[in-house]
Amino acid sequence: MKKIAILTSGGDAPGMNAAIRAVTRSAIGRGLTVYGFMRGYEGLLDRDFRVLSARDVGGIIHRGGTILQTARSDRFMESFWQDRAAEFLKEEGIEGLVVIGGDGSFRGAAELAKRGISVVGVPGTIDNDIAETDLTIGFRTAVETALDAVKRLRDTASSHDRLFIVEVMGRRSGFIALEVGVASGAEAVLVPEVPFSLGMLNDKLHAARKKGKTHSLIILAEGVMSAQELKTQLKDTGGYEARVTVLGHIQRGGSPCSVDIILASQMGKCAVDALLEGETAVMAASRCGKVQRVPLSWSWERRKLLDPDLMELVEVLSI
Amino acid sequence: MKKIAILTSGGDAPGMNAAIRAVTRSAIGRGLTVYGFMRGYEGLLDRDFRVLSARDVGGIIHRGGTILQTARSDRFMESFWQDRAAEFLKEEGIEGLVVIGGDGSFRGAAELAKRGISVVGVPGTIDNDIAETDLTIGFRTAVETALDAVKRLRDTASSHDRLFIVEVMGRRSGFIALEVGVASGAEAVLVPEVPFSLGMLNDKLHAARKKGKTHSLIILAEGVMSAQELKTQLKDTGGYEARVTVLGHIQRGGSPCSVDIILASQMGKCAVDALLEGETAVMAASRCGKVQRVPLSWSWERRKLLDPDLMELVEVLSI
Amino acid sequence: MKKIAILTSGGDAPGMNAAIRAVTRSAIGRGLTVYGFMRGYEGLLDRDFRVLSARDVGGIIHRGGTILQTARSDRFMESFWQDRAAEFLKEEGIEGLVVIGGDGSFRGAAELAKRGISVVGVPGTIDNDIAETDLTIGFRTAVETALDAVKRLRDTASSHDRLFIVEVMGRRSGFIALEVGVASGAEAVLVPEVPFSLGMLNDKLHAARKKGKTHSLIILAEGVMSAQELKTQLKDTGGYEARVTVLGHIQRGGSPCSVDIILASQMGKCAVDALLEGETAVMAASRCGKVQRVPLSWSWERRKLLDPDLMELVEVLSI
Amino acid sequence: MKKIAILTSGGDAPGMNAAIRAVTRSAIGRGLTVYGFMRGYEGLLDRDFRVLSARDVGGIIHRGGTILQTARSDRFMESFWQDRAAEFLKEEGIEGLVVIGGDGSFRGAAELAKRGISVVGVPGTIDNDIAETDLTIGFRTAVETALDAVKRLRDTASSHDRLFIVEVMGRRSGFIALEVGVASGAEAVLVPEVPFSLGMLNDKLHAARKKGKTHSLIILAEGVMSAQELKTQLKDTGGYEARVTVLGHIQRGGSPCSVDIILASQMGKCAVDALLEGETAVMAASRCGKVQRVPLSWSWERRKLLDPDLMELVEVLSI
Repeated sequence: MKKIAILTSGGDAPGMNAAIRAVTRSAIGRGLTVYGFMRGYEGLLDRDFRVLSARDVGGIIHRGGTILQTARSDRFMESFWQDRAAEFLKEEGIEGLVVIGGDGSFRGAAELAKRGISVVGVPGTIDNDIAETDLTIGFRTAVETALDAVKRLRDTASSHDRLFIVEVMGRRSGFIALEVGVASGAEAVLVPEVPFSLGMLNDKLHAARKKGKTHSLIILAEGVMSAQELKTQLKDTGGYEARVTVLGHIQRGGSPCSVDIILASQMGKCAVDALLEGETAVMAASRCGKVQRVPLSWSWERRKLLDPDLMELVEVLSI
Repeated sequence: MKKIAILTSGGDAPGMNAAIRAVTRSAIGRGLTVYGFMRGYEGLLDRDFRVLSARDVGGIIHRGGTILQTARSDRFMESFWQDRAAEFLKEEGIEGLVVIGGDGSFRGAAELAKRGISVVGVPGTIDNDIAETDLTIGFRTAVETALDAVKRLRDTASSHDRLFIVEVMGRRSGFIALEVGVASGAEAVLVPEVPFSLGMLNDKLHAARKKGKTHSLIILAEGVMSAQELKTQLKDTGGYEARVTVLGHIQRGGSPCSVDIILASQMGKCAVDALLEGETAVMAASRCGKVQRVPLSWSWERRKLLDPDLMELVEVLSI
Repeated sequence: MKKIAILTSGGDAPGMNAAIRAVTRSAIGRGLTVYGFMRGYEGLLDRDFRVLSARDVGGIIHRGGTILQTARSDRFMESFWQDRAAEFLKEEGIEGLVVIGGDGSFRGAAELAKRGISVVGVPGTIDNDIAETDLTIGFRTAVETALDAVKRLRDTASSHDRLFIVEVMGRRSGFIALEVGVASGAEAVLVPEVPFSLGMLNDKLHAARKKGKTHSLIILAEGVMSAQELKTQLKDTGGYEARVTVLGHIQRGGSPCSVDIILASQMGKCAVDALLEGETAVMAASRCGKVQRVPLSWSWERRKLLDPDLMELVEVLSI
Repeated sequence: MKKIAILTSGGDAPGMNAAIRAVTRSAIGRGLTVYGFMRGYEGLLDRDFRVLSARDVGGIIHRGGTILQTARSDRFMESFWQDRAAEFLKEEGIEGLVVIGGDGSFRGAAELAKRGISVVGVPGTIDNDIAETDLTIGFRTAVETALDAVKRLRDTASSHDRLFIVEVMGRRSGFIALEVGVASGAEAVLVPEVPFSLGMLNDKLHAARKKGKTHSLIILAEGVMSAQELKTQLKDTGGYEARVTVLGHIQRGGSPCSVDIILASQMGKCAVDALLEGETAVMAASRCGKVQRVPLSWSWERRKLLDPDLMELVEVLSI
């Protein structure tokens, strides 16, 4: 193998640049040429790329977002365009491709694998909703960013005897909501995976009030409903004045925390090693602190579950 | 004067605790007893207070919000209740009152001054919309918090070729929006004080696009319209995918920055000095880096204007 | 079991307060009374304690340090005082003790276990040098704090073509140094566990210089030597102007990051569960993301090793 | 005027990049060509420059350090080299020069003014020790960075009943030390401008101890003596265990705060306006919130004094 390519796809996540750096430098160190495609699969179809040097990826390790940019690609859903992409890569003599993104992006990569390109997936998404890897790149930074915002809300909540309903990211999964909930000492955490009752919420708020808590926090994953909708449904707030905050896109940005940089660095190297050892259709996965390879298809065939002990912890510690 | 009281009123702001500490310690150092009333004028009417010691205000200097809590008081709008409050203070032998809050709170304080209580206002609001003082406590921290959020949005905006419309606080005034706009290198800043044209905005976005900018930022003060509404009105975004973010209450919270702590400390001491020198109906004001006393009524009689040079700077530097 | 006690011992670490909160609330939720001893074993010997309520531990979850304070205790090294402590606990009807600290503190706890007190250790130290637990409370926050400082040094290093030698904490172990080194993209990481050669360092610096790097970073664990000493020994720096920075105690403080809060919360609950199930001389350990119980003695009998893959990563990615 | 040049000189400071951006874009907007010289006067003598476009300075507004790098230049002290530099600028048709740095750098610039080059100084130094401007670029960020570090030390100090002696930057002046001292609630602030007595310090520490303060802070400007030396001289610490921390170079780095970005943007534009209006040997100065021009020579002829009220505030509020 002489040439490999790299692209970032789907939503951006803090640490993607550290992964790009790790793939590029690991590959160059092993004598490979590295092509960086812009805007995910769109750039691959538009043949929009640049050859990356070790210096090109200097100074990006701490930068949020992705220097290769990212985009949705409807074209790449069609096998016609998947054929074009595979052909182009072969013409260019690019035998390996590293795709940094979520399971949607990995399904696309699998199509290229079927067409003879060696592909490795690096899980990069703030949602952490990819099975068989303990962590995805960007998750820890997103939790940290959301927690920092919630801490600010606590100050003003305590000063006004308020209930804050905070909507965090997570369409399909409650990983961000759950960790932010535990780390912020929230009264309740609402996630798509677990049904909840408004009556129970009311009781909790009344209880908190009775205990003399000067504020109350509900962390809500966007996948459940909007914070505004919950506020409307939640007529009785136990005497707390209710306020709504939607954290939104700030959760995607910012300089990656150490965990995400280290994870991205390990996974980037793992991806290059896999390609050089002739593997394909695998994903770099973090399991018990070690980064190893697992079948790429696991990322969409299997489901990652929330830790029930963490859910219980919210109850136990919010007394 | 043997006894003074202190309360925080209106919306909370980072640095209010530093002001409480400064008032309390300056007063105790001068031999006074300090009463802290809870929940602003509500606590004054409910006679809900505690005597504050120098230790009670230890370790609060860096904490956001206000340990005395704050609240709106409709009752205190009525002269009946203003009489009650003045009587109670006299019964307790409390001759001076320091009110930390905005111009609305100062109008209430003025009513107590008419009733023979010496009152001093300390301007505490993140909006910075109080005339005759260069700064209000909490403004700089709010700008910093908003800027930090906008920096995160820039990362993801650049990665997706996006336009971000960011709604910051400021119902009547654009001080936060303007400073965040300059400090974040925004394409445009929309404030209540200055009319704007959608056509001009479109032109700017097209121009930015032509110049090859990978992202574009519009900072919007809530007083103009909601970010969502602007997005709807702004049909043509020059090819950028538009996203909306409402920063909301996170702008009120957080540990105060050094400017707000120092300002609060100076103003707190200034307020106690004023009371001991027999002044009343004055406000502690920061003018050219010096904290001095000005008539309290100026805070609502006069209007503070945006710096036109800063508005121009947004144009000049966003080329 | 009706009464348990808790104390923090050894150096303080961010997240200890979250652990105190978790132990207290888990215990109260199970009907126990919780005694908090001040200044570690010193407070136990001085009988300096307070009964903790669920509210007493409200609002401390995000605070650095420990509200119970901590101290070294030479007296408690002697079996005479260990007898006194055990007797006192029995007199008071305190059957269980949770010790938050490092392996030194756990040896002390083991002495109380021998004397019939049920003890559980919760690993709290920024050094992460406790065997059989993947993480100790405070480690992740310390790495984050150190990384943030190193990022600031990078700015000024790049502006001056400088080499920065940064001394981080870690007397016996290089866990902080290694993770900070990978996350900051350092040229070299020097740790007590791995010998190094000055010649090799010189070569690296020359190589970095040749590659056109505008700055260079060496992360040094204090256990190897002082940064100043390394600078003196390192005569040839490949043309970089060398500067030394000792991060020092700032690495101990600050609000805990989400990982440390969640870890502390899980371990605190685990400790209470262990006591209620009649266990003693065990430690709460994080293994593969799950918190479980392991023999307390493992903490000093076994040695935790650095991840060799991470050491290699520094080499691979600093090209 | 068709061409101007810009360079950064002396120690780097957060906000220098924002100033480079402001100068470049203001100049390009007015039809000028902008030359950026690398490594301060060294690059001017080595003719090491690049022409800067509006895009070249895109995305640097929030970055610490200076993209033009900076360096000391011994050569430029000699009039022989000053002649060479002026000649070269004239050959290139560069009529105006903006120097971002401290008073030392401004003296150099004045030599070029004598040789017929229009020069404008932009005060950039974290020390804030330049007369006739209320603020210098980088000062506020440095204070914020130092305060953040001291807040971390407070956590661990409170947990151990400790005295922390924190050495901050400031060889000739105590501006950083004073503001950090007030903002951190320090017991004492030692600055080069004001003599101090060890006896008084001892008394303060004993007093603090008596009042039951769990920790004590002394902020020390490096210009007074080293923190280690103070610790040695300060035998009696009133029962507090003394620890020393030298914040060092981290105070220079980091993303600039909003104040520094806005200040740098205003000063950058002011410098270009001055050149276009035919002025020379002037400095952009911030006075009462307005940026205006003052004679460049004032920066070294006059002395900026500490605010005695702030010094007093430390005493008043540390009771």
